[in-house]
This record gives sequence, C-alpha cells and structure tokens, in this order.
Amino acid sequence: MQNGNGFSQRMRARVLDITTGKMVAVLNNKDARELGLQPMERVEIINTRNHKSVNVVVDVTDSMVREDEVGVFREMKAALGVKAGSILDVRPSKKPKSVEFIKKKLDGTKLSDGEMREIVEDIASNKLSEIEATAFVSAVYVHGFDLDETVAMTKALIANGKTLQFGNRMVLDKHSIGGVNGRTTMIVVPIIAAAGFAIPKTSSRSITSSSGTADAMEVLANVSLSLRDIKRIVEKTNGCIAWGGAVELAPADDKIIKIEYPLSLDPEGQVIASVMAKKASVGAKFLVIDLPVGPYAKIKTKDKAEQMALRFIEVGRKLGIKAEVLLTNGYEPMGSAFGPSLEAKHAMMVLEGKVYDNLAEKAMELAGALLDLVGNTVPGKGKEKALGILRSGKALKKMQEIIRAQGGKITSSQQIKEAPYKIQVLSQHDGVINLINVSLLNRIARIAGAPADQKAGVRLLVSQGDKVRKNQGLFEIHAEDERKLSTSHEFALRNEPVELEKVVIGKFE
Amino acid sequence: MQNGNGFSQRMRARVLDITTGKMVAVLNNKDARELGLQPMERVEIINTRNHKSVNVVVDVTDSMVREDEVGVFREMKAALGVKAGSILDVRPSKKPKSVEFIKKKLDGTKLSDGEMREIVEDIASNKLSEIEATAFVSAVYVHGFDLDETVAMTKALIANGKTLQFGNRMVLDKHSIGGVNGRTTMIVVPIIAAAGFAIPKTSSRSITSSSGTADAMEVLANVSLSLRDIKRIVEKTNGCIAWGGAVELAPADDKIIKIEYPLSLDPEGQVIASVMAKKASVGAKFLVIDLPVGPYAKIKTKDKAEQMALRFIEVGRKLGIKAEVLLTNGYEPMGSAFGPSLEAKHAMMVLEGKVYDNLAEKAMELAGALLDLVGNTVPGKGKEKALGILRSGKALKKMQEIIRAQGGKITSSQQIKEAPYKIQVLSQHDGVINLINVSLLNRIARIAGAPADQKAGVRLLVSQGDKVRKNQGLFEIHAEDERKLSTSHEFALRNEPVELEKVVIGKFE
Repeated sequence: MQNGNGFSQRMRARVLDITTGKMVAVLNNKDARELGLQPMERVEIINTRNHKSVNVVVDVTDSMVREDEVGVFREMKAALGVKAGSILDVRPSKKPKSVEFIKKKLDGTKLSDGEMREIVEDIASNKLSEIEATAFVSAVYVHGFDLDETVAMTKALIANGKTLQFGNRMVLDKHSIGGVNGRTTMIVVPIIAAAGFAIPKTSSRSITSSSGTADAMEVLANVSLSLRDIKRIVEKTNGCIAWGGAVELAPADDKIIKIEYPLSLDPEGQVIASVMAKKASVGAKFLVIDLPVGPYAKIKTKDKAEQMALRFIEVGRKLGIKAEVLLTNGYEPMGSAFGPSLEAKHAMMVLEGKVYDNLAEKAMELAGALLDLVGNTVPGKGKEKALGILRSGKALKKMQEIIRAQGGKITSSQQIKEAPYKIQVLSQHDGVINLINVSLLNRIARIAGAPADQKAGVRLLVSQGDKVRKNQGLFEIHAEDERKLSTSHEFALRNEPVELEKVVIGKFE
Repeated sequence: MQNGNGFSQRMRARVLDITTGKMVAVLNNKDARELGLQPMERVEIINTRNHKSVNVVVDVTDSMVREDEVGVFREMKAALGVKAGSILDVRPSKKPKSVEFIKKKLDGTKLSDGEMREIVEDIASNKLSEIEATAFVSAVYVHGFDLDETVAMTKALIANGKTLQFGNRMVLDKHSIGGVNGRTTMIVVPIIAAAGFAIPKTSSRSITSSSGTADAMEVLANVSLSLRDIKRIVEKTNGCIAWGGAVELAPADDKIIKIEYPLSLDPEGQVIASVMAKKASVGAKFLVIDLPVGPYAKIKTKDKAEQMALRFIEVGRKLGIKAEVLLTNGYEPMGSAFGPSLEAKHAMMVLEGKVYDNLAEKAMELAGALLDLVGNTVPGKGKEKALGILRSGKALKKMQEIIRAQGGKITSSQQIKEAPYKIQVLSQHDGVINLINVSLLNRIARIAGAPADQKAGVRLLVSQGDKVRKNQGLFEIHAEDERKLSTSHEFALRNEPVELEKVVIGKFE
C-alpha cells in the first residue's frame, strides 16, 4: 500500500511524559493531511541533532499536539534522545515487510524461517503496532504452527534475546506447565545442583494462581537477578531460582504473552516455542518437562498432553536439547500449601526431611528423570539417586548456599513466619474426601491476599481419600489482615473447595 | 477467568491530559498487585461524588502514577466527570461476555444475533480493548460471515448508532465501492432530488486516493453536517452530500475500519454490513450500488463481484431495502479529473451540460437504475428520465439549491479556481493510448498535494484508444506550490501512468 506523499517535514518535539509500551508518534490532524498520512501509517523520525532515527506508527489528534509539533512518548524520547523542543525530521515511510507476512499467516500460508524472524524482531522492537501483533497472534491461534514453524519461532525468540553460556559445563533445566500448586522447582534445583550440574532456573510470578515459583522463592531470597547475577551465582553454587521477568531472555515472547492473555489464547506451537526458547537461552542441553493433566491444569486431556509432549521432544531434538516430558497428576493438589510463604515453607520442610508427600514424590520423579537423561547414573536409578541426595541433607545444604548467594537470610522452614490471622474451615459431615478443587483453593488464597501478601494463603489439612469426622478441619485460611480473612472465609463457606463423597450431587424440583 | 480478589480501593484521580482513543485506567504496580489485577484485566471505576461509573481495562506502570492514584485519560475524565484529585472507587470486575463470543468466532463457531450485538456495543463503547477488537476482526477475516451473521452485524451496527427518519417519504441512496476516481454522487444526487425523492447522501473522505466525494463537495459547500442539519437540508431540497465521518451513524463500524486498515483486511461480510448499516440508518428503502471491477478497483474479478452483488441484495431483502448492484468498468478512469477541485469542477461541468463523458454516462446509469427501482417510470426508462432531468437544467438548479442549503457559495464550474502551478506531461512517441493507470495518477495527484491542497491534482487530456502524436500533452499536473509540482512531475516522468500500445513491454538481456 502506498503511504504518504513522500514529503518530509521539520517539526518540534513535544514530550508527552507517559510510558505507553508503544512506539507511536502523535501528529496534528493538519500535518498528517499535509504529509498524506492516515492514522496507523508509518513515519521515519530523525533527530536532526544526533541523527538517531526510529520507524513508528502515526496517531492523529486535533488537540494533543499543535501544528508543526510531533508528540513523543517516553519510549521514543529515549530511543531518539530528544528533549522538549528538539527539531525532528518527519517523513512518511513504508510499513515493515513483516506486516505482509502476518497477512500471509492470516491467509493460512506457512511462514519461512526468515519471515518468522522478521515478525519476532519487529514485535520485540515495537515496530509492529498492537493491532498488527494481535492479528499475528490470532492467525497463529486459528491456523497453528507446524513443526518447522515452531522451530523457526523458537530460534527467532532465542536470536532476539540475550543468552547465557557456561562453557563446557552440562546445563540442565526443568519446566512445569502451569495450572497446579506446589513448588517442585525449589526441591529439584538444589538436588540437581548438589549432583554437580548447572541449573540456571528462571521462573515466573503468579498470574492467576496464588503463587508462582518466583513469588515463593522471593520469601527466602532476592529473585530479581540480572543475567550477570545468574551467571555468577550458578558458577558459584551450580544453581539459582530467578524471576524470568527480570532478564531479557526472549523479550518478544513477553509481548506475545501479553497479547494472548486477555483472550486466553495459547496456541500450542507458541507455548512450546516460548518454553524451549527460554531454556535454550540459558544454555540448557537436558530438559525435563512436567506436564500436569487434569481439570485444574492447563492441559485437560491425556490425548492433548501426549501430542504436546511429542512436539516438545521433536523441537528439542532440532535445537540440540535432550528433552523428556512427564505427564503428571493434575487431578489433586501437590502438597498442602497455597500462597508464597506457605509454599516456600512446605518446600523447605521437604528439603529438611520433615515432610514427604506427593509434592516431594513428584520432585523426586522430575529430578530423577533429569539425572537419568544426563546419563549420570545406572539407567533408571535417577530417582533413587535424587532421593539419596535429599535424604543425605546435601539438597538442603545446597539450597541454603543458593539462598545466601541470592542475598537471602532465611534458610530454614522455622524462620518463615506465618500470618497473624488464621481460620479453619470444618467438615459439615462425617465422610470420605472425594474431590479437592485446586482452582477454588487458589481463589480463596488470592482473596486472602496472596500473592501480594506473602503470608496469605491456604493450608490443606486433608488429602483425597481421607476419612473425616464432622467438625474436623479441612483447611486453614491465612491472611495478613482481618478484612481479607473474613472476605475469604465467607467465599470459602459459600463454595465447596473440599467435597465429601456423595451419590446425589444436586437436586432439582 | 477469575479476575482480581474482589476488594475495592478508594483512589485519587490523576488526570493524564491526553486523548488515547481508549478507555484505560492506569494503576501503580503495587496497587494492581494489592487488588490481584494483571494488566489488561478490568476494573469498575465509580466517581464517589456523582456515582458515574465505567468498566475499563487496566494498564500497570511503575512510574506514571503513584500509589493510591489512578491515571485517567481524557476519554475517561469525560465519562466519569472527574477532576484532578477526585476520589474514585476502583474494584476488579469481570471481562465483558463479548470476549467469550470473540473466542467462539476465532474457534470458527457461528455467532448469534445477540452475541453479535454485544460485540458491536462493546466495541462502540470502548469496553473491548484494541487487542480484543483486533482478535474479532482477524476472526471475521479468517472465518468470514454467513448471510445470517452479515445481517446480524448490519442490524447491530444500526442499533448501535443514530438513525434518520423522513416520515412516509421514499428515501433513495447510492453507494460506490471505492478504488476509482470520479464523482458520480455529485451528479446522481441532484438528479434524484430533482425527480422528487429524498436522497440524504453521506460520503467519505479520501483514504488512499486523491479525493473522496466529501473532499470534492467541500470545495463547493460545508460537508461537516450534523444529523439535524442533514434532516433540515433534505426536507428543504430533497438531497444533500455530507461527510459521513461527522455523523455518528455507525460508530462501531468506524472503529472496526480503523483496525482493518493497517492490515488491509476487509472481509466481505464486514464490508457489506458496513455499507448496508449506513444506508439503513438514513432510512433508505431503495439503493443502487456501483461495484467497479478491474485492476485498480477494490474488487479485481467479475466472479468475486457477482458473489458480493448477490450478498448485497440478500442482505437488503432482510432489511427491507430494495437493492440493485451495477458492476461497472474499473479498467479505466471515469472522467478526466483527480483531486478535489478538479473533480468538483468536472461534476459541475457535467451538470452544466458542457461535458458528457464516461463519468456522466455512469451517473446516468446509476440514477436511471434508482428511478427504475423505485418504479417512477415505465420499466427500463429510468436512464432516459435521468438524462432528461440533466438536459433540462433541473439537475444543475437542484445542485445549486443543495450547495446553498449546505452553506456554499460556489455554484458554477467557472467559479472553481484552478491551481497556480501546472505542468503538462507529453507523449514520447506517436501511437495509440493503451492503458491509463488510475493508481499511478492518484499517486501523482497525492504527491502534488491532493487532497489536503484542494486545487492540487491531475487532469487527463486523453482517453483510452485515442491516437496521439509525439509531444502531445497526455495529462496536466496541478499544484499549489512549486516544490510539490516538481516532486510530482519527477515521479510522473519516472513512471508511466499513460501507456501507448506496444508489442514488447519489457526486454531483458
């Protein structure tokens, strides 16, 4: 499409002191017409003083900027190094070629490696508008990625971000696809590190659950680490647990996820590329993926999980990563804790040998699979070795080293303070526990203040299949203030997160 | 999806004096966490003083607003009636149901009337974010609309905007699908009005061409008319030619078009709904659609045009509009003018009886089809009647009435001033005109300054099939300043908008 009439215009910068997350130049209606520009068309803007330039989308206004002025938000101010009153050269320019590639994908045509790379680069550098990037995400959702495209997207994400190198060391990693509670990472990382392998783990904060691994680890130590911090800590201790949002491993991916979130679009190919890119970027060569299957997990059916597992392994092979996927039980909670402090405490108690439950068991499976994968033991003996490291106290000692290296001081479960306000929810009848609704317990923990209030959350007092008596405690709500406790308690009583076995589950007359 | 933890918070308004075209509340990161909110989730905001409320998307910042403040752009400031420092009640709320319907459409499921109406209402009232609205447009592009959905979209657009009523009067209308030059509207409207029928025509400004009908009419009269103006003028003179962008006939449609534009997405169903909604909103019961087919027109092939024509007629039937579609010649220019003043002058010369060319002929076909459709004449004699009205001078007189009613003073072609700078482009050889490239002529006119410079443009001096001699003038460029004239002239010489017949059209060695 033609764009503008080819003329350029010298204009004065008007700094709009706002961060918009976008590269947009605001022009007065009259100037836009003079340059033959429609809103959403593009201009090249050159700072006449330092010759820095950007290629950005135009927004048009009657009121925000005057004639002969160009409105510049913070992002562009930084990119161009302008001050209020700087003189800018504004010239209509073409839209990036990547817009044509997005159109191709919308039309159902497969994208080449080069096309994928251009799209990813232009998303990362804000050259594509939100409308264009959303059209891309929608196209990927509708038409999907085949194996080649998934690999191309993964490589493009890696190329576009920063990467870590650990020389000749064996780098291992694990990843859990979200949806359930429990912090296996805080058990697996110290075991693998204690076994002598590098495991530079980056984790996310909670989005819809009551805690992410980064939230729970933050109870014990600083998780906002730079890439340089990660390298230093892993060189010293073999492991770390950092917040992935603080490092720019795959900046385009973060932008794509931001678009997927409001519509809950998570096309499989994009999810796989996103995970694999982040693992490859830290130099991982051996990877175990925990894929929970169940009603509260992201993946609801075994068929879908198997298909995704095979795709993970294929993409890994193309990237030189030896990957193994464990489909895990997503039908019940892992461990008994919901909320940052409670989950951190639970993980520390496993490391201290005070608790061994289904969460600990899952962590041993994952750590064992990694040790098998890397060929460190007699085949099939990985889990035994992991358990040995846990039982010997070496995992706890390693975790304490990692916590200190990340600037933390809390190195035992006893040091983790509990919330000042607690209340128990009791069973209404005698019976057997039939169903524990992980989503509702997460919701109760969130209403109680998690994850922003670290100590807020839920502690389960029963497991599936347990026999309970009337008035026996089913779970405990923890909160940092009374109002949140009572609101959360009311919500818990109105709903039924822990159900006893029944024959009749509803009655209509 | 769950959203927030259900708590509300009293916060101080911080007015961000910028028009963003979006309803977005900016929260500090800390407050967002406290409320359990992610960016792009929604809050209800209530002004505690006047109890006005809005339901908007959240954006999260570290720097733009402080804790306990909510950043409010101009749109929200107006909707809530807030001032700096007003106290607002901020409470997490659910996303509109329409987001689920958009997801359904992405999944390829047909939408019901009610679902379509909710999507359109939420787009019009800015309840949907740009990301969500773009996902909808992408879904419609990929999966299309069937007849029911096209009708549902049309009705939703009508219900959502304002409408005009003219009592028991017969209301006629015409529409041209874009892509070619020439202002048939300025000839058809006065003929239909002179024949005694109401024709409240709304037209667009140019987007990519050198002039829209609204741009050309603006040379003669005011086109920024309110709905009340339109009603008054049509009641007085039977007709008007107004700029559609000034009236809120289908506000959601304008927003959808803004999203379609950057990616050149114009799904057929959406185009049809857009046209039919605007016609139904002015009360039209008889409609002729001019659908140019050709390389420079929006529709390139006759097959595609026929399919679209049938769909227009079916949708018209469901809305009680008798529609007829004329497929017209989109292979060559209509008339000889490109640019607002030149096109206005050309149309006036047709009305004055000084010119009768293919543009005039096309206008007679369209006006005649309308008169036949409304049953005003012996069947098939509509064109004859239209020609009679033109020849009698009644159409010119009616146009002058309309111009005056729209506050204009220029009522003859002689009063329309020409540009001060002109240059002719000459033929390089003797020969026969084989091809006139409408897109290139539009581009030349735009570089010369059209449509912002009204007098800028191109006047063709030859027609397809004409014999020309070397150094004979092919076309004339008009401009309001010398620089634009010379840039446009250089562009014209580098390209070949008017081609002579050749056997060899390219040579590679």
